[in-house]
Amino acid sequence: MEVFDAVRTVLAVRKYQDKHVPPEVVERIVQAGRLTASASNRQPWHFIVVEDKESLHRLGELARTGPYTAGAAFAVVVAIERTPFAVSDASRAIQSMILTAWSEGVGSNWVGFSGLDDVKKLLQIPAELDVLAILPFGYPIDEIGAGKKNRKPLAEVASKERFGQAFG
Amino acid sequence: MEVFDAVRTVLAVRKYQDKHVPPEVVERIVQAGRLTASASNRQPWHFIVVEDKESLHRLGELARTGPYTAGAAFAVVVAIERTPFAVSDASRAIQSMILTAWSEGVGSNWVGFSGLDDVKKLLQIPAELDVLAILPFGYPIDEIGAGKKNRKPLAEVASKERFGQAFG
Repeated sequence: MEVFDAVRTVLAVRKYQDKHVPPEVVERIVQAGRLTASASNRQPWHFIVVEDKESLHRLGELARTGPYTAGAAFAVVVAIERTPFAVSDASRAIQSMILTAWSEGVGSNWVGFSGLDDVKKLLQIPAELDVLAILPFGYPIDEIGAGKKNRKPLAEVASKERFGQAFG
Repeated sequence: MEVFDAVRTVLAVRKYQDKHVPPEVVERIVQAGRLTASASNRQPWHFIVVEDKESLHRLGELARTGPYTAGAAFAVVVAIERTPFAVSDASRAIQSMILTAWSEGVGSNWVGFSGLDDVKKLLQIPAELDVLAILPFGYPIDEIGAGKKNRKPLAEVASKERFGQAFG
């Protein structure tokens, strides 16, 4: 899938088919995170791939905004260093992973930002790291690829040369 | 370009050809930012497209880490609300823009995070917004598409089921 088509069509997916995602697709998604650029190339992240059904169920219980994680084919838990640019860097890595997954027909959604300390215990994540997000992944149940996005018009979020000057 | 190929090959570009980027490509890049997902769909961002040579020159002077902005075909200055998830959300939008540009042969690099208050004055950005990044864009001078990335090995940044358990 072309990059812009992926950006244009990707939607939050919260209902997943009970269908295995092939290991090579799982790995490609994690590689997309690993290969993303970061400030001073620090790569202040760690990706934990969770496929165990019991762990997915627990993640769904712990993440107040993402109970649907329980039904995912797998999840990637994104842990970050407590350094100044780690949130920015890992957010870029998350976007790389979500777009790569989408281009393979796999949906996801960013689950955060509360209840994540208990996730650290569950996954034995070291104290010096924080959990930024849980990304549940799976094949969408619904045909949502053609869905229309609800976004502010371009004129409201973009300007030309200086703030407030009409774009285009 | 396929999404994963873009993620895999995109590199920081700091030297640009003296060549115009067509307006439809500029617009596609900004649309990629606009269409990105954000927490509660808040879209806490504003994109200012700067093509004026004098302004690009000033941006290059103001951004300590990005003097090469002066030589860009254009730049997108990303301003954000002072809300909890704005940095995450806008970082995702920035990744969407950089990947979309790359798939069109246009290079960029994240310029931040200092000296950006003066940028607010230059571009008349309202006090309640912050500048997160300057993204200079242009056609790369060097053939860098085949460049190899310097990244930590997968085993170091990824685990399976719990932290520290070998991936794959």
